[in-house]
Amino acid sequence: MSQDRAKVRLYVDAPLGVAQSVPVNREQANYLFNVMRLATGDRVALFNGRDGEWLAEVVTHNKRGGILTCVAKSGPQCQPPDLWLLFAPIKKTRTDFIVEKAAEMGAARILPVQTRHTNAERIRQDRLQAHAIEAAEQCGGTYVPEVAELQQLARLLDDWPMDRQIMFCDESLVGAKAGLTAASGDKWAILIGPEGGFAEEETTRLREMDCVISVSLGPRILRADTAAVAALTLWQATLGDWR
Amino acid sequence: MSQDRAKVRLYVDAPLGVAQSVPVNREQANYLFNVMRLATGDRVALFNGRDGEWLAEVVTHNKRGGILTCVAKSGPQCQPPDLWLLFAPIKKTRTDFIVEKAAEMGAARILPVQTRHTNAERIRQDRLQAHAIEAAEQCGGTYVPEVAELQQLARLLDDWPMDRQIMFCDESLVGAKAGLTAASGDKWAILIGPEGGFAEEETTRLREMDCVISVSLGPRILRADTAAVAALTLWQATLGDWR
Repeated sequence: MSQDRAKVRLYVDAPLGVAQSVPVNREQANYLFNVMRLATGDRVALFNGRDGEWLAEVVTHNKRGGILTCVAKSGPQCQPPDLWLLFAPIKKTRTDFIVEKAAEMGAARILPVQTRHTNAERIRQDRLQAHAIEAAEQCGGTYVPEVAELQQLARLLDDWPMDRQIMFCDESLVGAKAGLTAASGDKWAILIGPEGGFAEEETTRLREMDCVISVSLGPRILRADTAAVAALTLWQATLGDWR
Repeated sequence: MSQDRAKVRLYVDAPLGVAQSVPVNREQANYLFNVMRLATGDRVALFNGRDGEWLAEVVTHNKRGGILTCVAKSGPQCQPPDLWLLFAPIKKTRTDFIVEKAAEMGAARILPVQTRHTNAERIRQDRLQAHAIEAAEQCGGTYVPEVAELQQLARLLDDWPMDRQIMFCDESLVGAKAGLTAASGDKWAILIGPEGGFAEEETTRLREMDCVISVSLGPRILRADTAAVAALTLWQATLGDWR
């Protein structure tokens, strides 16, 4: 069936523009033609993080790939606010969820960090990046946040760009008034702690940094994945693209 | 080891008070004495949703159960605001997550609802209730929200108590200004739609109800579990116990 609004959204690398041809790789071909059962002439919505959303038509396809052609621009390029999410990786499923939710909630970059109490020694960056892509396809966004490699929080703070504010979700403030009260600037990062919290030296260091604003997330202790969504909500509603 | 602050928190049915004996059942005994390896004299934090948090000591235990004795009250009873969460059940894992997150975020009741586009024909109420208990134990709360049996949204609205406002998270408002602007009253319910959204007749009916306030959750389409946490955050920060 041809349709005006595409049911399938796909993130691609290729440039998008009038009559532009877009090749799809084996994995994308499997999704489009096996899973979603698209046929020649069917339409797909494409985005690449730069050129907005385009309606494209299936020109040819087989098991190993296919060619789509851009038909018309269907939406503008929408960049998220300049917001990073720093979090300490936890169990696999919950780490996947944090990345998925950060993409849905409009984080621009996702930075897994190793803290004193983080168990994870390594992450599968490629798998997490794939989750971010899938979330962007699903949520109607035109941007995929980059997932960085795991790095030490202490080193990241050594080189921290001082014009970027940190919304520090400080578990020791559980029960304090929630919300972003003193807030300014348009470059931000949210920092979510590991299960078990930050080490005292980490908390002390963060509180002493001028760019850090400590924030409470209510009277109950939230799991890291809950805290990520809650913090992103507070930030987006107060300073971001929900306003 | 004896300790002043208990690492383990447990929800029980029994009344809690000075020198009160509290029996633990087989499942709780397995958790306390096998998983957490507590011994006679070790301390546990108990709550029952009525009497606050109490420190209790292990008096006797075996594989099938045990007896704890309350030592001292360690925290007040904190009731959540009078907030219900209505949501359409989705895939198993995500439904579990919604219940867990609703308990962490301080919902007072959790009501799974069947909408026109809900796939789920039934839920495992007992399993969902167990998730709510575990989340309350984990997040330091002293209250466990009741998980209701699955019911039809249409019927629930037929008998809706008109003094309870509904924060209706309306997907068709994606991109509108987010937030709770016109808000009053202290009885509330949040309504989150199914994947695929509400049917037009449902949306029309909701919008015509006086107690309904339609709310946008930002410019991207959120999955139901993300939407639940985001909506609970907005509500708690604006009207609830995060203020």
